Amino acid sequence: YGRFGLDYNDANDRAVNGISKTTITSRLRLQFDMSTETDSGVAFGARFRAQAESRDNTPGGATFNGARFFVGYQGISVYVGNIIGAIENTPGMYLETRTAGTGIDGAGFVSLVSNVNGEYFNWDAYSSAGAGANGVEVLYSTGGFTGHISYSTDNGPTNVDRVAGMVSYKFGDWRVAVSAQSSDIAWEDKVVASVSGNIGNFGVRLAYADNDGIGKFGLYGNMDIGSASNILVWVTDEDAVSAADVANGRNDNRDGVAGSNNQEGTSYGIHYHYDLGGGASFETGYRKASNDNDTFQAGVYFSF
Amino acid sequence: YGRFGLDYNDANDRAVNGISKTTITSRLRLQFDMSTETDSGVAFGARFRAQAESRDNTPGGATFNGARFFVGYQGISVYVGNIIGAIENTPGMYLETRTAGTGIDGAGFVSLVSNVNGEYFNWDAYSSAGAGANGVEVLYSTGGFTGHISYSTDNGPTNVDRVAGMVSYKFGDWRVAVSAQSSDIAWEDKVVASVSGNIGNFGVRLAYADNDGIGKFGLYGNMDIGSASNILVWVTDEDAVSAADVANGRNDNRDGVAGSNNQEGTSYGIHYHYDLGGGASFETGYRKASNDNDTFQAGVYFSF
Amino acid sequence: YGRFGLDYNDANDRAVNGISKTTITSRLRLQFDMSTETDSGVAFGARFRAQAESRDNTPGGATFNGARFFVGYQGISVYVGNIIGAIENTPGMYLETRTAGTGIDGAGFVSLVSNVNGEYFNWDAYSSAGAGANGVEVLYSTGGFTGHISYSTDNGPTNVDRVAGMVSYKFGDWRVAVSAQSSDIAWEDKVVASVSGNIGNFGVRLAYADNDGIGKFGLYGNMDIGSASNILVWVTDEDAVSAADVANGRNDNRDGVAGSNNQEGTSYGIHYHYDLGGGASFETGYRKASNDNDTFQAGVYFSF
Repeated sequence: YGRFGLDYNDANDRAVNGISKTTITSRLRLQFDMSTETDSGVAFGARFRAQAESRDNTPGGATFNGARFFVGYQGISVYVGNIIGAIENTPGMYLETRTAGTGIDGAGFVSLVSNVNGEYFNWDAYSSAGAGANGVEVLYSTGGFTGHISYSTDNGPTNVDRVAGMVSYKFGDWRVAVSAQSSDIAWEDKVVASVSGNIGNFGVRLAYADNDGIGKFGLYGNMDIGSASNILVWVTDEDAVSAADVANGRNDNRDGVAGSNNQEGTSYGIHYHYDLGGGASFETGYRKASNDNDTFQAGVYFSF
Repeated sequence: YGRFGLDYNDANDRAVNGISKTTITSRLRLQFDMSTETDSGVAFGARFRAQAESRDNTPGGATFNGARFFVGYQGISVYVGNIIGAIENTPGMYLETRTAGTGIDGAGFVSLVSNVNGEYFNWDAYSSAGAGANGVEVLYSTGGFTGHISYSTDNGPTNVDRVAGMVSYKFGDWRVAVSAQSSDIAWEDKVVASVSGNIGNFGVRLAYADNDGIGKFGLYGNMDIGSASNILVWVTDEDAVSAADVANGRNDNRDGVAGSNNQEGTSYGIHYHYDLGGGASFETGYRKASNDNDTFQAGVYFSF
Repeated sequence: YGRFGLDYNDANDRAVNGISKTTITSRLRLQFDMSTETDSGVAFGARFRAQAESRDNTPGGATFNGARFFVGYQGISVYVGNIIGAIENTPGMYLETRTAGTGIDGAGFVSLVSNVNGEYFNWDAYSSAGAGANGVEVLYSTGGFTGHISYSTDNGPTNVDRVAGMVSYKFGDWRVAVSAQSSDIAWEDKVVASVSGNIGNFGVRLAYADNDGIGKFGLYGNMDIGSASNILVWVTDEDAVSAADVANGRNDNRDGVAGSNNQEGTSYGIHYHYDLGGGASFETGYRKASNDNDTFQAGVYFSF
């Protein structure tokens, strides 16, 4: 797919970091899916992506990402290589927008309850532009139930593993999901839970994560307006890190503390979607992060 | 498309720069075009290229280049990202050969009136192998008329912008075009003008550029021979840089001055094309640059 | 194609080199072939590959490799760029497995008689992941006969050339092949010979190479079991390097000498293939190299 637009970010300033407050943000992604099936009905496949981006007026080319392989038989799938990850795959974690975040490029994804205290995306997740986690995972789906266990390890003198599991269940218009990660890397143990559903034209969602002691909850609502528009609003609240963790070397997110990233507290955002037909849409969004960073983005998103 | 052949370049010498005078020159380019159209007839699209080259016996692999996006509605097109550039898009600037220059790989493109004094390709142009200029441009076409405005800027404490415009008009077998670039980078302001047309089997073209004070004009003629052959000859003449500019740090192209690149004066070349059918052709060309550099190339060019 | 599996390698040890003994090994390869034909029946074409691998738990993305171009007319083909190489193209050199070696990723290709004394792959060969040799080669085939001459050179003050030739002849179920390389790089002159054939369900092969003074022979046998299985066994024996070569700076492969790579002597391996249908198969193999390195691999291989 492709997407491009303008990004206003008040953290950019030519006088401070040399970047204009308003820049072009864009992404072009090409995906190659390959598969075959054995005589006994086992499916084998692989996925390859090439993705070029421009952020903060720094355009780039693209290389292929790390490969992901799968073997599937009836409801069971095994993935090897650049895995999805059980936390990443938790329903009700990302926004219900085409960009999975606010605006055109996600605007930093502060809306995720699993992103706190400058410790963003510290779980195994599929990488579209890099090599990704080199892991193994098993998914099982039947009826409304999905279970997912993922595992990866790094090279080094001792094992540095990440193990994660997720279960979700869908009944009617509602879905609940719980996932957890146990990691040998500091401050990466976490539990994520979500409930989401539809009430007529309204979509509502509640999510909570305990990020190794830092709680963050989020409340999300979206509403269709007419046949082509949707408006989404969200608010999250991030707890303060404990003084003991900071003393042990963890980032500090506490308001009013020198050297802190000030991410404690409330973030909120609004996103508007207008369907243009043919797979194209207009997307715009504003969000204010808990550290007072403002971004506003508008642009188009299209698939082919 | 692909092209490959042999390149004789008398600037190469194993005893001097370690490169054999005769080397393989080749390029393989793969292009991915994607597009969709909204219900109201607005077109969205993107272009991706991967290109591998060998020049001077240094072969390379390929990555994807920077992405270019477009939105089109009737005669108006807006491009974002790796833009074409208004100067680059001026009709009557490149040679009327499949390689747009002399021989198989363009032979340095000394035939362009906008390339002078070692200041080559100092305008915004689509990059097939790199990220390109990260800009925005608008094109408008109606009947024989085309207008084009492009803009790009770099990161940094102050704005470093390139703005360029182009208009061209086609009537019958003739076309006139004028373009200009205003740049915040030194020695990049330029104006390019061309007139080109056909008289029976003969194609003639006259081009002139004022490259921030250095004039260069070119005269180009080509003729079909039988049903499959075409022969093209060209000559250009480059003015000397002013002593004042050199004193301000500009390159020196004056003949007979120590440390000069000696690019002042006359360059000429000849190119021969023979169509082999099926999209393949034999291409060969010789050119003598104004600094006495000789190149002779022969090879094949094919599209698929 | 794609392939992935588990690799047990006793040369890996977290306590020694930080790599677990058992790791994921995988490869995903995407190939783009392009061709066209002129009116007179001459074929032009090019090949491009992108390949991502994970070895020893180090996953990677992919870029396109160096391009290879060809011109073909009746039995004659000329390749330019990332060439195959005459030694590489010798029938009866690689194993008769889908991976051309033992197990899932070839397990170091110790089964090749042209790989000795830590001087592995020291001939011109097509590179799937890099730029490759930038050369020219001519192949001629008629009936059971194939002849192949390849040439490449490097940049530098003096010519550093590799020239290689190969002839092979097939009659009934048997094939003989001889190839030789003359190189300006030290210790790269070599002669390779092979005889291979089928006796009912049995495939047998004998290969020998003189690697600039180090002889290595190999004996290979494989047998179909039922309709879907094949089992292959091989053994090779590598001679010791001469003391005079070591004194001149060559690697030392002699057993019982301090600082030697100990590659002198006997290596052997076994490989099992089970066809799953649909282009997928199960592949597993064990080999013990002459320096006592053990590897065992099992996984799946599929084409699409």
